[in-house]
Parts: sequence; C-alpha cells; structure tokens
Amino acid sequence: MSQATLTDEALRYPIGKVQVPDTYTPELLAQYIADIKTLPARLRAAVIQLNEGQLRTTYRPGGWTLKQVVHHLGDSHLNSLVRIKLALTEDNPTILPYDEPAWAEQADHQLPIEASLKMLEGIHLRLVALYESLSDEQWDRTFYHPGAQKNYSLKFTAALYAWHSNHHLAHITTTMKQWGLA
Amino acid sequence: MSQATLTDEALRYPIGKVQVPDTYTPELLAQYIADIKTLPARLRAAVIQLNEGQLRTTYRPGGWTLKQVVHHLGDSHLNSLVRIKLALTEDNPTILPYDEPAWAEQADHQLPIEASLKMLEGIHLRLVALYESLSDEQWDRTFYHPGAQKNYSLKFTAALYAWHSNHHLAHITTTMKQWGLA
Amino acid sequence: MSQATLTDEALRYPIGKVQVPDTYTPELLAQYIADIKTLPARLRAAVIQLNEGQLRTTYRPGGWTLKQVVHHLGDSHLNSLVRIKLALTEDNPTILPYDEPAWAEQADHQLPIEASLKMLEGIHLRLVALYESLSDEQWDRTFYHPGAQKNYSLKFTAALYAWHSNHHLAHITTTMKQWGLA
Amino acid sequence: MSQATLTDEALRYPIGKVQVPDTYTPELLAQYIADIKTLPARLRAAVIQLNEGQLRTTYRPGGWTLKQVVHHLGDSHLNSLVRIKLALTEDNPTILPYDEPAWAEQADHQLPIEASLKMLEGIHLRLVALYESLSDEQWDRTFYHPGAQKNYSLKFTAALYAWHSNHHLAHITTTMKQWGLA
Repeated sequence: MSQATLTDEALRYPIGKVQVPDTYTPELLAQYIADIKTLPARLRAAVIQLNEGQLRTTYRPGGWTLKQVVHHLGDSHLNSLVRIKLALTEDNPTILPYDEPAWAEQADHQLPIEASLKMLEGIHLRLVALYESLSDEQWDRTFYHPGAQKNYSLKFTAALYAWHSNHHLAHITTTMKQWGLA
Repeated sequence: MSQATLTDEALRYPIGKVQVPDTYTPELLAQYIADIKTLPARLRAAVIQLNEGQLRTTYRPGGWTLKQVVHHLGDSHLNSLVRIKLALTEDNPTILPYDEPAWAEQADHQLPIEASLKMLEGIHLRLVALYESLSDEQWDRTFYHPGAQKNYSLKFTAALYAWHSNHHLAHITTTMKQWGLA
Repeated sequence: MSQATLTDEALRYPIGKVQVPDTYTPELLAQYIADIKTLPARLRAAVIQLNEGQLRTTYRPGGWTLKQVVHHLGDSHLNSLVRIKLALTEDNPTILPYDEPAWAEQADHQLPIEASLKMLEGIHLRLVALYESLSDEQWDRTFYHPGAQKNYSLKFTAALYAWHSNHHLAHITTTMKQWGLA
Repeated sequence: MSQATLTDEALRYPIGKVQVPDTYTPELLAQYIADIKTLPARLRAAVIQLNEGQLRTTYRPGGWTLKQVVHHLGDSHLNSLVRIKLALTEDNPTILPYDEPAWAEQADHQLPIEASLKMLEGIHLRLVALYESLSDEQWDRTFYHPGAQKNYSLKFTAALYAWHSNHHLAHITTTMKQWGLA
C-alpha cells in the first residue's frame, strides 16, 4: 500500500486522536504508564531497522522525515517532563508552548537519532518515576496551557503523552510496513 | 581534608562563579562547547566510582546529595535546551524559571543516576549541535530571564552552561577527593 | 495460566527448537538478521516493565531467573561474536565452548540488567554489520564446535542466533503474560 | 609536536609496557579496578571530541585509525571477559588467542564507534563485578595463554587489562594533543 492510497487524515492520524475517558480508572492509568515506559525501546526496535536514506523519507507528503519524527519526540517529551515538574511544584502554572515546526528545522534535528533515543530513554524513566509516585490528589494537579486555553490535569497528560508516543511511533511503523518492514 | 575545613563558600563554589569575558572570542566559544560536549562522559567517569551510600551523601552540610546533583544537572540542562531552542525560534522570548530545590525533591531524583546520565548524553549532543551551527548573528540572539530580569545572549548561555557543568561536577569530584577517589 | 499448567517441555522451549531450513534463501537470511538486529530493543521493551522482585523470579521451576536469562544472552552472544570473527579470520577454527550454568552463577549475573542490555546493544550492532557484509562465499565459512562435534556455517549461526534471541525473549514474555504484562 | 618527532617506540608505547609488580597489594588491585571501571567513560570523553575524519586518522604511520583503536578495545575486552569467566569456571583452561590485525579488518570496525562504546560500558561493568567479587584464592586462579605459553593469574589480568585500557586510550589522547585537543 503506498502513501497515495491512504487519505491525508489516515496518514496524519494513524491511531486516531487522543481519547479522553469518562473516568481515569487505575487500569487506564496503568496502561498509559506502560505505554510511556516502553516507548523508547519500541521506538528503537523500529528505527534500528532503517538506514539513513529511509530515515530521511517523509511519513506523508509534505510531512516530517522519520528522523524529524524521532527528534520531535525528543523535543516534545522534554517539554512534557518540564510541564509535569512545574505542575508538581507550582500551583496551576502557565506553561510555555513552543513552535513545533520551527523546532524541527533546527540543527539538532540533523543529528544521528541516537542522540534523541538516549534522551528519551532517560526522560521516560523520569516521567514514569513521577507518575508512579503520585497520590490521588497529585494526579489532579494541573498546569494551564495558554495555546489550548485549558487546564491540563496530570491524569490527562498521562493519556496525552501515551497517545503522543503511540501516535508518532505509528507514523514510523506505518511507513515501514509500506516498505515490507515490521 | 574534611568538609569542615573548607568554608561554606568554598564548598558551594569550588570553581568560583561564572565569568563573563570582555569579548567572546572564537577560542573561548570553542572551549565552552568542548566543556559542554565532554560533560556527560566526565560526569560518568566520576560517578561510576560511587556506590549507593556515597551517592546519598551530601556534598556540603545541608546541601544536595551527589545523586541529587546528577539529577539536577538533568533538570537544568533540559531547561537549557528548551531555552536555546526558544531563543532560536522566537524573538527574545521570556523563558520560564523553575524552582530548583522543589524539583530536586520530586520522585525522579530517587531514580538510579543512569536515567539522568543517558538524558544528559542526548541533551548535550543536542546543545553542541545547536551551538556549532550558529552564525555570528545567531550567537547574539537572546531570551529574557524574568528571575534575573536580564536578556541572556546565546554566547552568554554557552559560558553559563559550560560553567554550570564544571561547577556541579566539581561538587562531586571535590567530595570524592575527600574520600581518596580521583 | 500458571507455570504449573504448562509442561516442562513447553516452558523450556516456548518457540520450539531451532529450525534448519533446506535452503538459506536471501529472505530467510534477511529475517534472521532483522531478528538479531531488533533483539536488544525488544528485550529492553519487555524487561523495562519488571521490578527487581520480578526479575528475580524463575521462568520455570528450577530454571534461571529472568535476570539470569538477560545476562545469559549477554554471555552467549559475546561468544557468538567471538566465534563469527574467528570463522572469518581463520580456517574452520575450533571454538571454545563454555559452561553456561556455571557462567550464570558468577557475580556479574547479579548486576543490574542495564549492564547486559548495553553490552547486547553494541554486540548486536557488530553481529549485524558482519552478517550484512558477507559475500556468498563467506556465508559458507565455518567453525568447528567440539561440543556438538559439528562444523557450523555462518548461515547456520544466523539461524541459530536469531532463534536463540527469540527463544530466551520468549522465556521472559511467556512469564510476563502469566503476570498480565504484555 | 607531530608524529614525525616521536620515535616509533614512543608512538607505539606511550605509557610504556605493562608492569608486573613484585606484590599485588590491595592498593594496586584497587587501582587496576578503578582504571578498568572508568575506561569506557574516559574513552568517550576523548573520542566524543572527534569528527569522522579525525577518527579515520592513524595514531602512528602504518598503525590503526583511532576508530580501529576504539573497536579493538571492544574486540579485546570482549575476549578478556570470556577468559576471566573461563578461569573462574574451569581449571586452568587453555584460552583461544585471536588474530588482532585480522579482526581489525572486518566490517564491524567500520561501524560508528557508539557500537563499541556501549559494548565496553557493559563489558567493563561485568569485569569490575567479577574482580570485586573475588576471594584471595580466586585472585590466584589462572588460564593458560598458548600464544604467550604462560599461565595468567587473575591478578595479572587485572594489571594487564588496566594497562591495556590506558595504553590504547593514550594512543588516542596523544594524537589528540597533536591537534590541540585535550
């Protein structure tokens, strides 16, 4: 199946958009944490199969290269860790959005992906240690996202970052399947 | 030499405070970059010699444990990367300070130090790729630090993060010397 | 499903024994290489979900702990790399078997698994670089295994090490499934 | 100082040849272990400063490239770990020498050095765990080296591998000093 046979929407959202549950059950939270915990290794298992030419291929027409997707996960989850720690140490702090496309154009996105794979291995251990330490009360702590103009609870961030992990990994694995790679 | 024989000032500032040069010569900038480039490996070479008990020892009375110092470098340089990328993609953005002591009390500072060592290996590769890509004009780009109430140029950040790397590494190595370790 | 409901044979050989194909087609060799290439990351994705108590649980009554299985993969594929390089640089060399159970009792098998995960990440990159470089003629080079009293071709070793990777990973994942982990 | 101004002997043996002490004091053994423990990080702190062109430069006329030196440390200490585990689990086993120059010509020596840096990080943790676990009696266990036609005690191997670590690191750092790098 080539990129052309999938709609732009299907290419952009291979696992759909983030789902907000009615209730954040312990089972759901545990699943979010498991997804976040395993993302760096699942990502490595996928991208280790790719050569530099494949890494420099876009996952959809006009989209990022697979290499930029890896580095974007680094950019994004770096900010995730900052936001969670701000929410735990300040009262509903206003966090700082960043210009995702502009960040993807900087020189650090040309590095070998090992730089972001290692960074993500460390960051996700940190994210998981934080989530696993939260009391019921702390799970309800929030930060304010001025772009979305909403308060995000830590529960919601767990759903969001688990989805974001799987979402971008699916950009990579969907592309790999078109090349006959697992 | 025991902790008690050094003044509190000497224990807090083993290499003194950050020096701002009259002129940021290419040689100085190259030295800052080299210090930032090698910090994760120099840090690993030091702390790999320490057992858990030693890592849980403070570097000065009332100060952080060596483990917290390692994780603080992770916290701090994570924010450094965010600030540099903001300065490169926005016009003199106001960055977000964070509560360093409160961050050091969170659950992620109890993790094995490997989490932060890996994170730092990735982050410093990113920092160096960014610095090495800068044009003269970009070196003068700035962000505004609302705590310091000052604009920080990227040149100054290179001096600052190189110093910050060596400063905290010296907290660790000074303590290790008191134990007869290199 | 508990360990007790699986036969000893099923617990020992969760994916059966190594299969020797009639012909080593390019597709088969590519599959072996892909399995070897991704093993360290697939292994990490599994074991990162386990705490120390789980790692110290045996995968079958009387068998190794999951931690020993990880370190055994390190022991074994270390020797694999030695054997392939010997076969490439000497004429049908006699390799040196080792006492697998006795090696699993040494002090290095008590280390945190990170030591073997990193070692395997490096070793498997080396194994794959070697396999991917082989000419048809080199694929038929051999070493002599004095325990098995057989010559092993490099083709056979690719089949063997891919199977060995998946075999021991299945010891871990089969155990994890009994605990409700993926 | 250029390569030409140093004698071939000085280039080959920048720290001299391995020293065998009259007595293996606890202090000496602790120093050997410390050198082995820190080698991977000291090596990384050096080579992270080098670009691909520098890594492809020989450390002496007719000698290996710096990249081959890094990969040779991987080859060699891989065999060191095998030999120590053989000596601990068999009675004065005869170990298997390998053709060092031929091994350095194989395809795995063309890999990015990260492959061997990671491998060495894992291997050296293993080596240190083994050495630190030894009873007085075990320190005197031996293997037989058929090339040298000598029995090597584990005490001697600690001296040898510490020297071998520092010896090859000095090949790299001596070359770097000629380029004005630390």
